[in-house]
This record gives sequence, C-alpha cells and structure tokens, in this order.
Amino acid sequence: MAMKHAASSALRSLLSPSSTFARNLHAPAGKKKIVGVFYKGNEYAKLNPNFVGCVEGALGIREWLESLGHQYIVTDDKEGPNSELEKHIPDAHVIISTPFHPAYVTAERIKKAKNLELLLTAGIGSDHVDLKAAAAAGLTVAEITGSNVVSVAEDELLRILVLVRNFLPGYHQAVNGEWNVAGIAHRAYDLEGKTIGTVGAGRIGKLLLQRLKPFNCNLLYYDRLRMNPEVEKEIGAKFEEELDAMLPKCDVIVINMPLTEQTRGLFDKNRIAKCKKGVVIVNNARGAIMDTQAIADACSSGHVAGYGGDVWPIQPAPKDHPWRYMPNHAMTPHISGTTIDAQLRYAAGVKDMLDRHFRGEAFPEQNYIVKEGQLASQYR
Amino acid sequence: MAMKHAASSALRSLLSPSSTFARNLHAPAGKKKIVGVFYKGNEYAKLNPNFVGCVEGALGIREWLESLGHQYIVTDDKEGPNSELEKHIPDAHVIISTPFHPAYVTAERIKKAKNLELLLTAGIGSDHVDLKAAAAAGLTVAEITGSNVVSVAEDELLRILVLVRNFLPGYHQAVNGEWNVAGIAHRAYDLEGKTIGTVGAGRIGKLLLQRLKPFNCNLLYYDRLRMNPEVEKEIGAKFEEELDAMLPKCDVIVINMPLTEQTRGLFDKNRIAKCKKGVVIVNNARGAIMDTQAIADACSSGHVAGYGGDVWPIQPAPKDHPWRYMPNHAMTPHISGTTIDAQLRYAAGVKDMLDRHFRGEAFPEQNYIVKEGQLASQYR
Repeated sequence: MAMKHAASSALRSLLSPSSTFARNLHAPAGKKKIVGVFYKGNEYAKLNPNFVGCVEGALGIREWLESLGHQYIVTDDKEGPNSELEKHIPDAHVIISTPFHPAYVTAERIKKAKNLELLLTAGIGSDHVDLKAAAAAGLTVAEITGSNVVSVAEDELLRILVLVRNFLPGYHQAVNGEWNVAGIAHRAYDLEGKTIGTVGAGRIGKLLLQRLKPFNCNLLYYDRLRMNPEVEKEIGAKFEEELDAMLPKCDVIVINMPLTEQTRGLFDKNRIAKCKKGVVIVNNARGAIMDTQAIADACSSGHVAGYGGDVWPIQPAPKDHPWRYMPNHAMTPHISGTTIDAQLRYAAGVKDMLDRHFRGEAFPEQNYIVKEGQLASQYR
Repeated sequence: MAMKHAASSALRSLLSPSSTFARNLHAPAGKKKIVGVFYKGNEYAKLNPNFVGCVEGALGIREWLESLGHQYIVTDDKEGPNSELEKHIPDAHVIISTPFHPAYVTAERIKKAKNLELLLTAGIGSDHVDLKAAAAAGLTVAEITGSNVVSVAEDELLRILVLVRNFLPGYHQAVNGEWNVAGIAHRAYDLEGKTIGTVGAGRIGKLLLQRLKPFNCNLLYYDRLRMNPEVEKEIGAKFEEELDAMLPKCDVIVINMPLTEQTRGLFDKNRIAKCKKGVVIVNNARGAIMDTQAIADACSSGHVAGYGGDVWPIQPAPKDHPWRYMPNHAMTPHISGTTIDAQLRYAAGVKDMLDRHFRGEAFPEQNYIVKEGQLASQYR
C-alpha cells in the first residue's frame, strides 16, 4: 500500500506520529475515483424525484462530483470476482455503500485496494467492512451517524405493534375473502401494560423508548453504559445491569446494538430459552446477532410468539432463508433506514463528508468508525 | 310492549314522569333471558384461557348468571329470520353484542322483542342498533365506554405506520423469496414531520394524539368541541374549526367519530378529492362513514396512497368487498377493540352493568347511549 502523494504524505507525518495509520486522515489532493454501491431502482427509479438512494438516484451527487472533476461509478453489482465493484476495487479512492445492499469490503478486497482512502456508510452500521483490516490498512471508515435513527426507531415500534397486535393474520383474512375474528383475537394483545426491554440504548434505543413512553408500558434497558439519571427519568426506562436478568422479565425484546465480535450470535438457543415463553423479539440491528436456526426453531415451537426485523445474516437474503417461512414473523428486506426521508438525510451527509474529505477537513467525531487505526468504542 | 311487573312498573312511575320511556330505566325484578351474540372461537377457543370474547368464552359470566337463576343463550348466528338470535328475540330481556360481530337490532326486531329491556354493547359503538327505534320503545342502550379505547388507539397508530412506512410490500417480498428494496423504499416515508389530522377527538382520538406526540408530527384535530386549552397544550394538537379546511393540510387522516345520520357517507367522492394527493386514511371508526366505492377508486387512482382500517359497512364483510382487493390497503376484520386485554375489560364491564341492571341501579352516566328515550349527544 504505497503512499502515492508526497505532499499529503508530508502533511500526514506532521499531523500523526504514526504514518502507518494515516493513509486517509486527510485526503490526498487530486481527482478521485468514487464507487457507490446501492440497490437498483429499476422501474421504481423514476416514480419519485426524491428517491435518491438507488443506483439511478446515485445520492443526487453525480453532477456535483463530476463538476469537481472526480469520477463517480455507481453499481449494485457487488458479489464475486467478476462483479462491477471488484473491477473498480484496485483504483477506487472512496467506496460508499449502505447497509441495505452492503458492499462487503473484506480483508482481501482491502489488500487489492491500493488507492483506497475512505469507506463511507450511507446509513448506520459498518459491519459489512472488515474493520480490523481497514484499521490495519490505515483506512478511514465513517457513517452518516444519526441520518436514519428516527426511521429505524419508528419501524421498530411498527414491528412491535404488528406482532403484539397480531395484525398479519387479520390482513391475510381481508385479502383472502375470510372473516374469522377469533383466529386473530385469541392471540392479539394491547401493548399497554407490557414489559419491553431494549438490548442496547444508544441513539435508536433511546428514540424507541421515547416513542413508547405514552403507551404505558414497563420499559427496561440493558446497555454498557447507564444513562444519566435525568435522561433516564425523562425517558422513563429502568436500567438493567445484566442482560440475562432482564430477558425473562420482557414480553417484548428489541435489539439495538451493533454487530461486533461480542454480539455475533448473542441470541443463541440458550439465551432464547431464558426469554419468557411467548416473547416477541424485534431486531432491526443486524441479523447475525441471532442464531438463525435457533430463532426459526423458537418461532416454530411457540416459545417465541413473534419475530420481526429487516436485517438478515447475509443481504440480499437467500430465497430459502428459514426466516422467510417460519411462523409468526414480520420480516422484510432491509428497509427501515432507507425511507425517502432517510435517503435525503444520508445523501446530504455523504455529500458533506466527501466535501470535507476533499478539503482535508475532519468529520464530526461521532461519524468515525475507524480513525487513525482505531475502532470506534462500540466496535471494540 | 306490555309492562309485565307491577312492582317495577310502580317504581318506574315514581322515578320517571314519562313512563313511555321508562321500560328499562330500572330492571323489573325476576329471572331474565339474556342473549349474547359473539364471534365463534372454534378451534381457537381453547388456546387461551383469557379468550372470553368468543361464543365459547361467553364473556366468562355464564356461571355467575346461571347461579342467579337467569337464562343465558350465546350464539354467533345472527342474520335472517331463521337465525338463533331471531328465535330468542321475542322473549329476550337483554341482548349483549359486540361491534366485531354485530347483532343488528333493527326496528322490526325491536317490535318483536316484547320483553326487551336492555341492549348492551361489549365495546364501543352502538350503531348496529336502530337507536331511534330503541329510544321510542323505551329501551336502554349502553356501552362499556372506555373498555377498548386504548386498544383501538394503538391499532390506529399501527395502521398509520404500516401504510406510511410501506410495510406490507416488504413483508410480501420476504415471504415470496424476493429482495427488491427499491420496490418498498420508493414510497416509504418517516412519520416524523408529517401532518396528521384526526376527524373527531373524543376518547380514542385523544389517546391517539398522545401516542403520536413523541413522533414530532404536526398534529391537527377537528371536533364538535374544542378541548380546553390546557389539555390541548398537553396533547400538542391544533384545533381546526372546519373539516374541509383541515383535510387538504393532512398527510394522514384518521377517523375517530361515531356513525350517525350526519357522518354516514361523510367521506364521499367530493370530500376525498379535497384531501391531499397521496394522503393516507385510517378508519377504525365505522365503515359506513366512507363511500365504499369512492375509497376503492381513490386507492386505485393513487389519490389515496393508503387506506387502512378494521371496519366495514356490513360485518362480516362480503367476500367480494372492494376494500379486500383495492391497492395499498391495510384492512383486517373488525379486530382492534377485541384484543385479549380489551375482552377482559369489556367482559368485566358487562358483568358490572348486568349486576347494576338486576339491582335496579343506574349505570355510569357516560355508558348510556339511549336513556329514557334520549340519545347520547354524539348520536343526535
């Protein structure tokens, strides 16, 4: 990974004692090759002028980038050695991707990416990048922190309601010409009065708890860090020090933590068994936090009364993934963070961060996932 | 409609100057025939010990009623001259029904019901009763006011989110082995920042507004009565004096008014045309407030971007009802007020009101829909 620009290299040694990690602290000058990996819009691309998050919309920054003389490649073709992404890896300076259609930036790809400086996640969650390899290579990885937290929190509440209220069997009856109230009502509940625990209470978890407050539920949260007493009081949620002590109390469990080495497979067969029989689980965080088969088995046995989420261990999810056909699920493709409103926010965030990168300015501190060889605290 | 019991008749003339309207002000003494009309539980009846709202559950009051010597007939067979309900009309003293599987108590049936004293709605909304005929016959009509208002308000927020966030196409993709984020995202929005107007802000409307508050929306309400300024401020909703002035401002419209002569067909073709293009409408109030075909047409044209609700002009809804197959709907059978929690509350309420009726005690004032020949204000 040879340094290419003497000037920026000199700047870097001024700014950082450890030049190994400084490849991208500030952008080398010159024209860049930027690769964006997004989902395809196809026939939907032209239906909404604000639909900027698809390949065709290209975050609405093509004109701006090209006016600055940069090259901007956009594709959805991301898997395997013959993919469009793979072709551009060797000389890309910046790769932008999203959690919805993630460009998996593996250690192998990082090794090939001789020019790479910056990996931007349009959205939240950069686990599609091998963060250790990125750190070792001196790359910067950054997210548009906050761009879609509201979108995800709203969707979590939606899925909680869909499952607790047993909405989908009723919808199927409506569509299929049926009318069987008992088939819905015998397992439909109010949310009011139930105990809801969030596993992780960062930005999204807090927004969810705030939205749950008027529902008169019993709110619990488990996190590495306890909120300060004022915030805790305002939100009205009780801190739980031990995850395994919280789980059996919950009628509804919501996952709000990043995928890390510590959280991968956290909800395995044993941990699911600790949950109350009839629990509802909502996971819009990352699919791999769950043991896939353990969730499918618990839905089939009825121990888990409902599982909902928009994240899958690999995305796009294979056609035969068990979460597609297990009973009582409320699954969708990865969608909660890519509403039109979210797209407009993360597109604006990407533009701002590219602008900073080109000017050699720092990003807002909370946006860094890997900076100068260090992983952000939540990924350590 | 001869008076049967001299003692109670005497009591009535003491209590009310107008004996014409006093047939049921207080119950005549003696053993009663009580007819309950509920939906059938069938194979679901035994799956949940708290499933009291079905025919088999019979509100959990059979033992109590029979221990008092009353006769308790329960059925789901309610339509036509050969139905079980029809058979018991001539000598029933009390008919209990629900909005979910309504016993239509027409003027004709009231004429046949020589013993009838009391019509109880286990839930809210007594439009299945010909209220004018009931008033003229001196019957009491009462609801379990408040028993399922939270249940309905929660469900309204659920349907708002399902439609605004475009959940169902994503769910279908998950089930059908597909992955096409664009097909969902191009018309999925955050609820945050949108304008939501409730048409009617009684008990349910207020509960909905309270639950919407943390979503940072622009909240409007139209009602006959303005809330007092303190309540209005706490709820954070702006009063609109004119329905037709509010409608074009709304991204989401929620119906929260009873079905009366004034509200029947209120949302016809002309009124729907006044709504913003792309509006989402949620109606858990009563189906007949809408012009059925006008809603179906507006969903087909895209003027209405989504229509959701659990109420239909006639229930059970016919197999070929256009709301079952129009695009972008979130319809279910009538379910929102009959969660397990709601069933337990309205069952307890029915027991309390029967107990009062047997003892000749008055009901809580807000529970009366027809009392001494007068309709409650919302039905006038």
